[in-house]
Amino acid sequence: MLILYHGWRSSASRRVRLCLAEKGLDYESRLVDMIRGEQHSPEYLAMNPNGVVPALILEDGRVLYESSVIAEYLEETYPTPSIRPADPYERATMRNFVRWVDEKCLAKLIVFNWSQSMQPVASQWSEDELAKRMARIPTPERREAWLRVARKPYTEEEKAEAMRGLLLLLERMDGMLEASGSGWLVGKAYSIADIGAAPFVMRISELNAPALAEHPLVTDWWARVQARPSFTTARIEAYIESAAKDTAKK
Amino acid sequence: MLILYHGWRSSASRRVRLCLAEKGLDYESRLVDMIRGEQHSPEYLAMNPNGVVPALILEDGRVLYESSVIAEYLEETYPTPSIRPADPYERATMRNFVRWVDEKCLAKLIVFNWSQSMQPVASQWSEDELAKRMARIPTPERREAWLRVARKPYTEEEKAEAMRGLLLLLERMDGMLEASGSGWLVGKAYSIADIGAAPFVMRISELNAPALAEHPLVTDWWARVQARPSFTTARIEAYIESAAKDTAKK
Repeated sequence: MLILYHGWRSSASRRVRLCLAEKGLDYESRLVDMIRGEQHSPEYLAMNPNGVVPALILEDGRVLYESSVIAEYLEETYPTPSIRPADPYERATMRNFVRWVDEKCLAKLIVFNWSQSMQPVASQWSEDELAKRMARIPTPERREAWLRVARKPYTEEEKAEAMRGLLLLLERMDGMLEASGSGWLVGKAYSIADIGAAPFVMRISELNAPALAEHPLVTDWWARVQARPSFTTARIEAYIESAAKDTAKK
Repeated sequence: MLILYHGWRSSASRRVRLCLAEKGLDYESRLVDMIRGEQHSPEYLAMNPNGVVPALILEDGRVLYESSVIAEYLEETYPTPSIRPADPYERATMRNFVRWVDEKCLAKLIVFNWSQSMQPVASQWSEDELAKRMARIPTPERREAWLRVARKPYTEEEKAEAMRGLLLLLERMDGMLEASGSGWLVGKAYSIADIGAAPFVMRISELNAPALAEHPLVTDWWARVQARPSFTTARIEAYIESAAKDTAKK
């Protein structure tokens, strides 16, 4: 069986669970306690050198990481039902969109997610504890994010700026939905593009419902995404409840 | 015919030219004068909203950007000869590697490339000229890079740090070449992974030949890459000559 190292609240984990659910693939769930720093342990870094969730262990023991790369792997290995357009140009559009979400939206979302779920614990760490943690984090971006929640909480101004950045997603999705005319972001069917956006729109719906309501095309899309059986199977649930489940396992 | 907006010295442009050459695809070459800021013109931004080269115009007028996305599009549209492994796991390895190069190596290489080719001109800009330029650059990363070469040249310490980061590519390639055993980075054949690395190794060979020589597997790989007819067709030439060609067109 596939083994998924993940977090219930993690956007990248949610994407992979959505792919698995669409494909009807079962997996063994192994929660990674991100507050305890399990994702920075030598054992986990051997699976995913970036020190982030998720990591997917295949039946033969080989490991995959990066949600967009896992998504295409699952599509190519379990092609039915398909979650990728057949047309090369639509595939390119899908890949560019997911890349854009990763590059532009993820850092903005972290400002909110981590303030809520990491800061209460990280702000209590001693200098020693903080130094030990920082030494184990493999990327400068994540060192910075942990330092922020531990010692320099994001300001209201920074949060407002992050929200402006995050909401660009809705603008972009509006344009794509208008262009496709199908109710899905790229081409005629639900695809990795929709899966890539869903965890972000979920969080926008919690953090800023009025902004989402201003985008009727995206609002309709969001209802369609939530109505898919895969959404329930993948357990894309309220952030606060997901976070509680992520830390309650021990 | 395909139309390529590009620069001879641009790493991403070089990747796309390598793909086109492997596929035996002809194209109309349109040079983008990056020092004049043509990549930030409204006309260019309509093609590539990131304001960077390259952009590929298809025969029907549709546009593609992002070298790794263009590479997969070309593979899917012109599948012979193939530049992508058939095995899904090898494809995932290829995609993760190219993504890693984009995320980790590109910003390091810019330190050297821009100090050499952008700084002499940008440092002469008046405050007015600089402000006008900055206002047209669509991404904060590129605004920062232009500001650095215009007003705060990278220090020797920063360059040493950037070189250390860039050389991690050689370590990673060593491991991949040892794992594949084929002389190519992923699987048994030349692929988008090799194309993704080639422009970076080209620059390392110019900037730090002794470091390259310390990696015999990569050195042999580099000889193999250069021996391919596509390398000549794609005109991956000395940086300083490429930069001169990029600006001599007018």
